[in-house]
Amino acid sequence: MSGDSPMGGNFKDVLMANAEAVEEVLDQLMPVDGSPEGRVTEAMRYAALAGGKRIRPFMVTASASLFGVGKICALRTAAAVEMAHSYSLVHDDLPAMDDDDLRRGKPTCHIHYDEATAILAGDALLTKAFQVLGEEETHSDPAVRAELVVEMAKAIGDEGMVGGQMFDLMAQDRTLNMPEITHLQRLKTGKLIGFSCEAGAILGKAPEKARNALIAYAHDLGLAFQIVDDLLDVEGDEKEMGKKVGKDLSAGKETFVSLMGADRARAQADMLAGQASNHLDLFAEKADSLKYLAEFVIKRRT
Amino acid sequence: MSGDSPMGGNFKDVLMANAEAVEEVLDQLMPVDGSPEGRVTEAMRYAALAGGKRIRPFMVTASASLFGVGKICALRTAAAVEMAHSYSLVHDDLPAMDDDDLRRGKPTCHIHYDEATAILAGDALLTKAFQVLGEEETHSDPAVRAELVVEMAKAIGDEGMVGGQMFDLMAQDRTLNMPEITHLQRLKTGKLIGFSCEAGAILGKAPEKARNALIAYAHDLGLAFQIVDDLLDVEGDEKEMGKKVGKDLSAGKETFVSLMGADRARAQADMLAGQASNHLDLFAEKADSLKYLAEFVIKRRT
Repeated sequence: MSGDSPMGGNFKDVLMANAEAVEEVLDQLMPVDGSPEGRVTEAMRYAALAGGKRIRPFMVTASASLFGVGKICALRTAAAVEMAHSYSLVHDDLPAMDDDDLRRGKPTCHIHYDEATAILAGDALLTKAFQVLGEEETHSDPAVRAELVVEMAKAIGDEGMVGGQMFDLMAQDRTLNMPEITHLQRLKTGKLIGFSCEAGAILGKAPEKARNALIAYAHDLGLAFQIVDDLLDVEGDEKEMGKKVGKDLSAGKETFVSLMGADRARAQADMLAGQASNHLDLFAEKADSLKYLAEFVIKRRT
Repeated sequence: MSGDSPMGGNFKDVLMANAEAVEEVLDQLMPVDGSPEGRVTEAMRYAALAGGKRIRPFMVTASASLFGVGKICALRTAAAVEMAHSYSLVHDDLPAMDDDDLRRGKPTCHIHYDEATAILAGDALLTKAFQVLGEEETHSDPAVRAELVVEMAKAIGDEGMVGGQMFDLMAQDRTLNMPEITHLQRLKTGKLIGFSCEAGAILGKAPEKARNALIAYAHDLGLAFQIVDDLLDVEGDEKEMGKKVGKDLSAGKETFVSLMGADRARAQADMLAGQASNHLDLFAEKADSLKYLAEFVIKRRT
């Protein structure tokens, strides 16, 4: 890697600038009118414009920048990914699911509104995500748009994120072993992270080798990301995180940390993040921002 | 119209044959494996393969047949529409929404499984619907596939079906007037019916005049469909319908029937169905099946 130290404040600025640009697009994509049903659009905005590091959108724009993809194309795709991510948080937080009251330091959607509105807001966010990917403004080539739709659907449907959440709920009354936890996390968080990185290659009609490198990067970084999430659930500060911590422990849930111990988990995350970055060597310094991201993911405290 | 009387059994046979063909495609599109997360796929199948008249899928295949669209293309699009419709039923039936225990004579998805599984199954059906529309097998032209994705999303998102459900929930503690009920139903049921009819024109790259005729047909028939739904809620037989009746009345909800009275509502539905059929005159006898459908919609008892 060249240039400024990623952790010296510079990378965080880049991340935040990207988050702001994505939020601007999200804001434009969800205009509120005075209609009575506008409540659901307000709830969508509440869920999707609630701040956050916007790591997945960053993966989209950073991977897109490797192939000279236009800014609007990348940002719209990033916004669609964030809508899909936000929908999953809204539904996961519901009483029938993980029953969470706090998210990013604010009441969750069903607490701020009500359950019905939260269910509908999630549904509408998911729907809008696909709409945005399908629209002409996202890419001039409809084959690219259709591919984005299909690949995101595979990443977040019953064979992806939703399947992971199902597995997670079913596993609550039994002990998972390491291959099972890895499978669960691969589905629940790994696949959407995978799509976020692959999206740049799809937008840029990248050669297969480049696309596979991004998939491999996402594969390793996704797992590192999850291990750090588990570590933060044990070691994190509730106030700083803006959500409950110690949840897995009190629920008696097995995690990477409960199975490996914190030290080994931390070493594993470091190793995976390094490995993730190595997959990007073929892009030389053009991939610096994704490498900085890998470092950021394992050093983050929230 | 020419040929057999639509109500003489012949049209119902055509409708059922189409339903079977759509169910075969649905079955293929949702294979179950032995994975632990397979429970969500099972719940998707439970919801989407629960029988029913499959009126929306029929609209897709009948409108597609006007333009010589290939059978597989039409059936896959029809299956996607049915997935979207099924998802909406699963979520609408949830305790936080309409809280229904019975659907098509069977326990609703959250009763048969549980709330969390029902929420996830709905999410996955919605996701899969977009995946199917985006996949190459649905149409060789990616521009058509992207257009299907965008138009369906508009029909079922916060400015369509989801918005309608939001409006419906918000209206539960106040009295709606006729323009409001019309607006509500236009969103809640009208827009997806509109897409179902328009889909054939999109698949067939139909000229604008033909497309507009189908939109106008769907517009009128969608309203007739809803009025008949309201009539059946008052006059229908619970056993025959396979769901609770008298719900609107006991909830003190205004409907077309409560505002107009049953006789005027019936006359209005007849008028709208006739008007719907008239929009199709430019297709001559090629549109007979859609005209039969209009008649079927107002004469149905379930």
